[in-house]
Amino acid sequence: MAADNHLVIMAGGVGSRLWPLSSPQFPKQFLDLLGSGKSLLQLTFDRFSPLIEPANTWVVTSEAYAPIVHEQLPLVPEGNILREPLARNTAPCIAYASWKIKSLNPKANIVVSPSDHLILDVEAFQKVIATSLKFVDESDSIVTLGMKPTRPETGYGYIQVDLSASCLRNKNIFRVDAFHEKPDLETAKTYVADSNYFWNAGIFVWNVSTIVNALRIYAPEISQRFESLLSIYGTQAEQQEVNKAYVACESISIDYAVLEKADEIFCYPASFGWSDLGSWRALYDNTEHDRFGNSLRGDVTAIDTQNCIIRTTEGKKVVVQGLDGYLVVEKENALLICKLTDEGIIKTIDR
Amino acid sequence: MAADNHLVIMAGGVGSRLWPLSSPQFPKQFLDLLGSGKSLLQLTFDRFSPLIEPANTWVVTSEAYAPIVHEQLPLVPEGNILREPLARNTAPCIAYASWKIKSLNPKANIVVSPSDHLILDVEAFQKVIATSLKFVDESDSIVTLGMKPTRPETGYGYIQVDLSASCLRNKNIFRVDAFHEKPDLETAKTYVADSNYFWNAGIFVWNVSTIVNALRIYAPEISQRFESLLSIYGTQAEQQEVNKAYVACESISIDYAVLEKADEIFCYPASFGWSDLGSWRALYDNTEHDRFGNSLRGDVTAIDTQNCIIRTTEGKKVVVQGLDGYLVVEKENALLICKLTDEGIIKTIDR
Repeated sequence: MAADNHLVIMAGGVGSRLWPLSSPQFPKQFLDLLGSGKSLLQLTFDRFSPLIEPANTWVVTSEAYAPIVHEQLPLVPEGNILREPLARNTAPCIAYASWKIKSLNPKANIVVSPSDHLILDVEAFQKVIATSLKFVDESDSIVTLGMKPTRPETGYGYIQVDLSASCLRNKNIFRVDAFHEKPDLETAKTYVADSNYFWNAGIFVWNVSTIVNALRIYAPEISQRFESLLSIYGTQAEQQEVNKAYVACESISIDYAVLEKADEIFCYPASFGWSDLGSWRALYDNTEHDRFGNSLRGDVTAIDTQNCIIRTTEGKKVVVQGLDGYLVVEKENALLICKLTDEGIIKTIDR
Repeated sequence: MAADNHLVIMAGGVGSRLWPLSSPQFPKQFLDLLGSGKSLLQLTFDRFSPLIEPANTWVVTSEAYAPIVHEQLPLVPEGNILREPLARNTAPCIAYASWKIKSLNPKANIVVSPSDHLILDVEAFQKVIATSLKFVDESDSIVTLGMKPTRPETGYGYIQVDLSASCLRNKNIFRVDAFHEKPDLETAKTYVADSNYFWNAGIFVWNVSTIVNALRIYAPEISQRFESLLSIYGTQAEQQEVNKAYVACESISIDYAVLEKADEIFCYPASFGWSDLGSWRALYDNTEHDRFGNSLRGDVTAIDTQNCIIRTTEGKKVVVQGLDGYLVVEKENALLICKLTDEGIIKTIDR
């Protein structure tokens, strides 16, 4: 475990797509969505623990979620929980964490990871991360992880890779030609047919110099704010000054702000069973079903019912009859019943 | 309002058929099922209030429900709430109330009514009751109310009436030929086709001498127990002795114990819009629907949804999409979703 390896877990998501299980009060990353006994955040932490020490693990989240993070990851020092006063997408989040880490270790190598994704083959994942960390330790490269697409998914961004241009130092890592936003179905089909396209998993690996330099060049307004706080990090004034910086920053993703503009972007194509669990359908596809195709959790009696996801509050006696392909989610003060094929209605709900 | 008129409301039902809205903790008669702001018990009391004084109104219920009755009917003297130590069907309930009333007024005329039925035309109902009370004041007759059937209902008992044999004193009241238990569908169809058959609404009118004599003859084991307590009613020992009597009584309905055996049974056929609200379908048929055929109560957003009954807890945000002909009931620690046509599954649920 290299002492220079750092992990930044982005845990600020507000959990709108898996409503009502996930909610702004308790979003997806803090839930045990898979029934493993651990939250997605905890699974994320565990996945990296053989590679990165808890003292080098940073969690960026909103002020409101900091106590939940502290409770769920007691090994992470409380000072490593970075509090965002408001959501500004991933670029300010990564800038804050990068300069904070740089202030402590200018030679740090960093993995940036979402907190709420699923990875099935953890060993394969760890090999990819270890290799990537070594790779960025030795070069000023930005490495993204590309997932081999298994279907023409329109909910993900794609990375177009030049598979003829592998790196000299690692033949598994390739130069990126372009990033593509979420496509329509027809375009997604052409991507899947073309072996050069990969899902953008939102996992990035770089050394701290590379990312701060890239931010300086491509996002100077953001980088200046966090660079100017170098003498403030670790002092009493940090939170107050960071809050000011956030308010002043535009809300922009690291993809838009840096990756799509920068050179020297690489992709490590991999297949370790990945999902962003960004929809009920995705959760359905990644959880076990009974022989009727139901994914049930709780005290559920399902009669003449198939292909359903049912999630309800502990202690609730649930009887469901005559449903096929429905989502039934009950939590605290909300109840959702809808067709799995129509879960898009969740977005339209005025919560 | 004749001082001799008494009302016995039977309010001991345990509410299994409208689960989970209705439950053993808070059964149907205590619920505002119709959204009128009053429980079915309160509506029952109100319906009789122009005819019978609160002081002459008796409510027979279980020990556990007595506080609910007292809260919902504050005008009824607490001593008029008769507590059953356990459910023994309607014969012991009516025997207890009859001897209790007889101990106070041997000239009483009594209406016995369920607490959880719906009556739409209250004025027409009151005329029928007033006429029946007058009728039994002047004769030793048992009067039952027969509802003109509007469909071949298999959930009700039927009264076969000799429409050629109206009473001399009242041409609207007829001699009963026979009582018939809940029929199968084919039989129900023949009943509906034959104008001599009426639904048994479970509402009885008699004077106290008539019913106690009938009980003495046809149900001597029950009647002896409650007759032997004549000197005990109104004393400190009443509850204890009544409890002993109940334990010793067999569980039997007044229909089986008396009506099917007795002579001089009359029926007052009527049409004032009656339902026993004994099923979700019955409730659906008797509540207002929106233009999509939905009967919704609570904070419900219904999308692409029709012909559904939805009842949920106050304060619960409910979103339902893509359901046709379903029942969705959420209450405290229970949630039921089933096809309205298959509500019979409720009986099979291990609660």
